[in-house]
Amino acid sequence: MIPKEIKNFIDAFSRLPSMGPRQATRLAFFMTSLDKAILHELESSLGALRGLDRCGECFFLKHENESRCGICSDLNRASDVIAILEKETDLLTFEAAGVFRGKYFILGKLAEKGVLETAQKSRLEHLKQTITKREKPLRELIIALNPTSIGDFTADLITKEFGGLVTKITRLSRGIPTGGEIEFADDASLASSFEHRD
Amino acid sequence: MIPKEIKNFIDAFSRLPSMGPRQATRLAFFMTSLDKAILHELESSLGALRGLDRCGECFFLKHENESRCGICSDLNRASDVIAILEKETDLLTFEAAGVFRGKYFILGKLAEKGVLETAQKSRLEHLKQTITKREKPLRELIIALNPTSIGDFTADLITKEFGGLVTKITRLSRGIPTGGEIEFADDASLASSFEHRD
Repeated sequence: MIPKEIKNFIDAFSRLPSMGPRQATRLAFFMTSLDKAILHELESSLGALRGLDRCGECFFLKHENESRCGICSDLNRASDVIAILEKETDLLTFEAAGVFRGKYFILGKLAEKGVLETAQKSRLEHLKQTITKREKPLRELIIALNPTSIGDFTADLITKEFGGLVTKITRLSRGIPTGGEIEFADDASLASSFEHRD
Repeated sequence: MIPKEIKNFIDAFSRLPSMGPRQATRLAFFMTSLDKAILHELESSLGALRGLDRCGECFFLKHENESRCGICSDLNRASDVIAILEKETDLLTFEAAGVFRGKYFILGKLAEKGVLETAQKSRLEHLKQTITKREKPLRELIIALNPTSIGDFTADLITKEFGGLVTKITRLSRGIPTGGEIEFADDASLASSFEHRD
């Protein structure tokens, strides 16, 4: 009764995060109401993602026919400071803030249990080797993970693992966010903010 | 810095309903983390929607190389009862409930102002002509719009328009939903439920 194209679309798209069968169904019918040129644009912008690969250095994304990503191949960026991030979207936030001109390293989404996945362990192993092979020592390793219990747990783990290789390992400071109010600050943020007053 | 494929994806997908730039960004990176075969499946299931068209009779969807949709061409369904629905997803809900074996007519999403769009007016005009041209008179026209103020307003309008053409025009009854509790019923539902007691 329902065109199989609609069924296939729902099957495929309801597997995406934060999209159940109901949302996928609505999306399917919305898509069919679009101009065919726009639908084609959506299709090809989705298909174009297949041309992307992970950068072998920082594990961000790059074109499959390029050897490294745009950031790793940028000679204007300091190569002796590396910021470890959890997700690609964290990198976008960093870049949008424009505060950092070193290199990144994407660890991959942390599991809720706090245990590193095999892929994440192998990424960290790769980072270790990169740092070991450097001619000049790494100046600073910035652990820029979320200030959550899992983020902290992982940061401790990384600090232990890399302690012998890098002299300076730092973490992002915590405190009251700009524009935030002391009245509504949580205890941990206020304590940290007070402790690091300057 | 960010691959243009990601940017294009975000631009295209953030135009979809209930998807802002932030969700589209997350979706883009999620997509790139998928197996390329799955990504290809998503792409082609999206592309396949371009092969769909509106049925010229009921305005549901059909393959572009078929003359009518699966429901309109189904000879086992009564053709002398037509249910007017707002959306394609309402049709799916009707079909899933398995309560109706007649034909449908999709009016299209009602605007919040309650004014019919040109496309909706022309669909209704088409329905009028279909009913007029019939050899045998239509047995029943069921107005199955949402029991909201806009739905009711539109139903009144349709009743007026089709009053001279169809003898029996009905609407879905309202009342307390199955499994619902009287204690929590709203006044209008309880009143309607009481009035139509049997």
